[in-house]
Amino acid sequence: MKIAVLGVTGYTGRLLLRLLAGHPAAPTILPVSASRAGTDIGEADPGFPEIRRNRLAGEGRLASHDEARRAGCDAVFSALPHGAAAARLEPFLDRSVVIDLSADFRLKDPAVYEATYGQPHPSPERLAGAVYGLAEWHRDALADADLIAQPGCYPTCTMLPLLPLLEAGLIEPGGLVVNALSGVSGAGRKAEIDYLFVERAEAMKAYRPGTSHRHVPEMRQELTAAATGADLLFTPHLVPLRRGMAVTTVARLAGGRDASEIPGLYDARYGDTPFLRRSAGPPPDSGDVRGSNRCDITWRQEGDRLMLFSVLDNLYKGAAGNAVQCLNIRFGLGETAGLPLAGEV
Amino acid sequence: MKIAVLGVTGYTGRLLLRLLAGHPAAPTILPVSASRAGTDIGEADPGFPEIRRNRLAGEGRLASHDEARRAGCDAVFSALPHGAAAARLEPFLDRSVVIDLSADFRLKDPAVYEATYGQPHPSPERLAGAVYGLAEWHRDALADADLIAQPGCYPTCTMLPLLPLLEAGLIEPGGLVVNALSGVSGAGRKAEIDYLFVERAEAMKAYRPGTSHRHVPEMRQELTAAATGADLLFTPHLVPLRRGMAVTTVARLAGGRDASEIPGLYDARYGDTPFLRRSAGPPPDSGDVRGSNRCDITWRQEGDRLMLFSVLDNLYKGAAGNAVQCLNIRFGLGETAGLPLAGEV
Amino acid sequence: MKIAVLGVTGYTGRLLLRLLAGHPAAPTILPVSASRAGTDIGEADPGFPEIRRNRLAGEGRLASHDEARRAGCDAVFSALPHGAAAARLEPFLDRSVVIDLSADFRLKDPAVYEATYGQPHPSPERLAGAVYGLAEWHRDALADADLIAQPGCYPTCTMLPLLPLLEAGLIEPGGLVVNALSGVSGAGRKAEIDYLFVERAEAMKAYRPGTSHRHVPEMRQELTAAATGADLLFTPHLVPLRRGMAVTTVARLAGGRDASEIPGLYDARYGDTPFLRRSAGPPPDSGDVRGSNRCDITWRQEGDRLMLFSVLDNLYKGAAGNAVQCLNIRFGLGETAGLPLAGEV
Amino acid sequence: MKIAVLGVTGYTGRLLLRLLAGHPAAPTILPVSASRAGTDIGEADPGFPEIRRNRLAGEGRLASHDEARRAGCDAVFSALPHGAAAARLEPFLDRSVVIDLSADFRLKDPAVYEATYGQPHPSPERLAGAVYGLAEWHRDALADADLIAQPGCYPTCTMLPLLPLLEAGLIEPGGLVVNALSGVSGAGRKAEIDYLFVERAEAMKAYRPGTSHRHVPEMRQELTAAATGADLLFTPHLVPLRRGMAVTTVARLAGGRDASEIPGLYDARYGDTPFLRRSAGPPPDSGDVRGSNRCDITWRQEGDRLMLFSVLDNLYKGAAGNAVQCLNIRFGLGETAGLPLAGEV
Repeated sequence: MKIAVLGVTGYTGRLLLRLLAGHPAAPTILPVSASRAGTDIGEADPGFPEIRRNRLAGEGRLASHDEARRAGCDAVFSALPHGAAAARLEPFLDRSVVIDLSADFRLKDPAVYEATYGQPHPSPERLAGAVYGLAEWHRDALADADLIAQPGCYPTCTMLPLLPLLEAGLIEPGGLVVNALSGVSGAGRKAEIDYLFVERAEAMKAYRPGTSHRHVPEMRQELTAAATGADLLFTPHLVPLRRGMAVTTVARLAGGRDASEIPGLYDARYGDTPFLRRSAGPPPDSGDVRGSNRCDITWRQEGDRLMLFSVLDNLYKGAAGNAVQCLNIRFGLGETAGLPLAGEV
Repeated sequence: MKIAVLGVTGYTGRLLLRLLAGHPAAPTILPVSASRAGTDIGEADPGFPEIRRNRLAGEGRLASHDEARRAGCDAVFSALPHGAAAARLEPFLDRSVVIDLSADFRLKDPAVYEATYGQPHPSPERLAGAVYGLAEWHRDALADADLIAQPGCYPTCTMLPLLPLLEAGLIEPGGLVVNALSGVSGAGRKAEIDYLFVERAEAMKAYRPGTSHRHVPEMRQELTAAATGADLLFTPHLVPLRRGMAVTTVARLAGGRDASEIPGLYDARYGDTPFLRRSAGPPPDSGDVRGSNRCDITWRQEGDRLMLFSVLDNLYKGAAGNAVQCLNIRFGLGETAGLPLAGEV
Repeated sequence: MKIAVLGVTGYTGRLLLRLLAGHPAAPTILPVSASRAGTDIGEADPGFPEIRRNRLAGEGRLASHDEARRAGCDAVFSALPHGAAAARLEPFLDRSVVIDLSADFRLKDPAVYEATYGQPHPSPERLAGAVYGLAEWHRDALADADLIAQPGCYPTCTMLPLLPLLEAGLIEPGGLVVNALSGVSGAGRKAEIDYLFVERAEAMKAYRPGTSHRHVPEMRQELTAAATGADLLFTPHLVPLRRGMAVTTVARLAGGRDASEIPGLYDARYGDTPFLRRSAGPPPDSGDVRGSNRCDITWRQEGDRLMLFSVLDNLYKGAAGNAVQCLNIRFGLGETAGLPLAGEV
Repeated sequence: MKIAVLGVTGYTGRLLLRLLAGHPAAPTILPVSASRAGTDIGEADPGFPEIRRNRLAGEGRLASHDEARRAGCDAVFSALPHGAAAARLEPFLDRSVVIDLSADFRLKDPAVYEATYGQPHPSPERLAGAVYGLAEWHRDALADADLIAQPGCYPTCTMLPLLPLLEAGLIEPGGLVVNALSGVSGAGRKAEIDYLFVERAEAMKAYRPGTSHRHVPEMRQELTAAATGADLLFTPHLVPLRRGMAVTTVARLAGGRDASEIPGLYDARYGDTPFLRRSAGPPPDSGDVRGSNRCDITWRQEGDRLMLFSVLDNLYKGAAGNAVQCLNIRFGLGETAGLPLAGEV
């Protein structure tokens, strides 16, 4: 099995490489970088383990996009930014299974894409065929998808607890209030003042609140597919962790329904996956899933309101981990293969 | 002017001492500690500046409660824990102006106190006379208060933006959804596993959500006083900062009203205080008020919903700073005297 | 294969459990806790993965020491504190291979133990037979050791770069100056004020400098075994990371020798182990080995002075990871089995 | 009194503005920025307190360099980077007292400047007249200096404990080994990958070790002026704090001398300044001087070796605070005026 990873110098790209380099299916991996082709992996990621260099094509030299195309890969991951990703991936589509971690193939409606990302979609005809890679929710469609759009980290953490409840009509679809907290790696590896250590340590803020964050349209798309009329106010907050995400959601229970149905609804939809731990206990701690591919979920009823709490590691279950899970599903490799179940202590 | 500070070894007590030691009114200060009476201040707080030792009674030796009583102070601050504070302060009441930073005198109704704190109030007859020290809101009552109950940090940050809007009927009183983020110093200086560096760094969690946090009853008391029927779901989150607080509130605008009224409502109630900066700009960053006595407030309208954003430093405006502000109001010292306007860079 | 882990509620114990639960040799694991026997693992470590519960004896219930003794384990890890460990391990010695992570079996001389730890050694006759588990240095002796003393984290990071150079006479044995920086987890999971988040974040300090730290005697023992007369000034510093260690050592080159010999000396002693990456490049970053079992080493010559730089993760290569490496060596499981080669991104 | 501050958008510039805005001498302040002239201060520094706007010339609009020149200031602070500073300051020299926080006027020898900073000095004739602003050490010369070169933060923290001992011959001048730890703000407010939160949190490293750091030449200059032959190996480390510095120095005592002389030597040189607290106690904690203009110093004798420990806040005593102290000395304003004695809790 041969797998290319485009954009290996960011946090998500590095993690993809490391996860794939330890994957039991032992794929041959092409690390690809347009800007740094020819560079040695040890320079691009000083934490990449020497002993895994034998898993890399080209002896650890970063390949160009052209080389990657010629290599005829079974699968291609892209950790390129939105906008760039769709164009860069075009030559790989129809030849390789593509798993894109950008926003480029998440939205079905090209008009919504243009309104959200400020530019027309370069290949709108591809949108209909892409499968939204929320692994536990779209597992069946993923099994034969050739173009997989990894969800944003916020949507993953927000929607995993919500979707089965919306679909079953347990909660009212409108008026959802979602507050989300994210570690700084969610912003990517960009040299911007706002993400400096000195700016972010000992500081926190809400940003792009209400309906102004770019992840709102993809959540609306998926939530309304589960329940007509679903809508939310969504407020992300930047907090001083490297990695981690915590979401607190308030919904209104549908008339006569209560939280006792929740375990059954989750079981029916999610089965016994090791990646979604859920209980009626106290809110989960993001530290308990740090470095794992898990999303821990709890809930609490307050009168006719339902509160949902979910945590994950934005680079693992919120990005690279979930992307590898999609690969596993697509190629029948065993859903947990190569993915950390326990996190860091 | 002579001022005692009870409980000087915690974070709030330390900050009170340092603020008072630099106060332009140059009070004589008695640092008081039941458990460490006789200890030198340099041991109790290695950061206390030597040069300010001359402001301390007893040459910097911590006094006992008995000594403090005999000293006949004009004002007494207490940074003791709830439960202990009311009993410890009894001998000072009617003799000194008392500013209590615990929860002991915040609630008017002894039954609510007992339900919230799990024990009967030791001096329920004192509750009616206490003034809730939300400085900008109760400024007039504070001017001749002899017992001042410093609000909790969460209530201060939550209610400063809310109260003028509720009072004016701009927003519906029910169904408020409040999400709050707090730095770890909010939990005090207690040797508990949950507050260790290794537990809290790179981790975050919601806790005591909905209506289960002890600050909910004092918020209900003040909010319903401003608008009948006010109620909220309140979810605090613990995030890895030393000091800081950020609150995001979602309310529903009353029929036909909109956010354009907000500047006028705040001006009418808060005037030109340097401590409350407010604007319709993007959400504030807690880093910009770190180390200052400020609370920065912004808002955003989303259809018929109003979002409010407020940040403060939980040890300054959320505790010791606001308490000194109450002292200033009570003794006519100039409201900003001795309080940091700019924070740390 | 059956393995007990004593003291599973600390950071090292938790990591041992998680590493062993993912170990390819698939041992049956007994989690043991004197104080919390009977508790479920999910309570003792909320981050332990449910799916690995099947690797635990007793369905994830923590066993008592008595139960562990009766179980007849092949190997026993102890993450108990020094003093307690020797006594608690006595019943397991001669029956199981014991790997002790405390200081109890590190020192050969009972008098030095007593002087260092303030109490007589409970079983001094055991000291001679214990092998100091510096894996790459004592690999041969470890292959048939029945009692293995895991080195302290500071000694591991300090001595891995030093020992081959001292042994070969490349540097003068006396006058070594060692400065070490450690993350806070090195202090263990103890509810002490000094290790609170608020005390340690945004703060740092040297502590127990010179010859006063308890790890100095074990370093003297090992260093003098490699080169008569070896001695050091050692100053640890506490810095605000959860996990990580960085050591900077200054030595004097022996007359006429220079740094060009270093690669050969390391190769001769350490071979091509994936865990010790070394080069003449710039000083390593502890972030690059975070979460891995690696120790990265670099050096720099300044006239007749040699500077050595080494980093590791104090819980992995400095404790639990190295301990599992010793298990692998002792039982012939393949030295890297179950150990992370890449760290966290 | 009229004071300009050049370069107000960095950390040091911001702190200078805030300190001066609260200075009891109530100077009129011109905030100056070449790149952002015309911008409002509230945009350049959202933490600047509104109420202090009246202290700023131009109602808080950032002035251009030309405007600053025409304003005829009594004093000019420059927080511009080295290289730029000397050229930019030329028009102010001979007209205003200039306090430069860059490296441009620290070195007496233009050849050393060129070797260190990679470019010829633009105004070498100015170097002889500049006074090195190590406030407590060069207090007399500062009293009538017209060009003051604020020392680097590392040199300040390293040399304050060393200089009186070297001058008195208590320690051997050669072979000093200095290890320094710095918070990330020491690198300035630059959008570089290496200073991102995600890169620096949970990571640490030595960098530019031995004699390769740019602060080594200025230390050599000052140390050899105090004791012929003084030399050092200097290794800075980057650790994850916003602000803070800790230095550990190992020296050899001169024959027959011991540490008991130290208090007398410091008293003779430093008197009773509130900014230098020194004792033979355990190493100081940088947290105790955080936000203050203090440098805390302790020492320990180990045989014939002397260990020195010093901590400061790199933005206060290591930069802006010390610079204001120099202003105070130069203009006879009282050495502590406007400077924080206590730090943050």
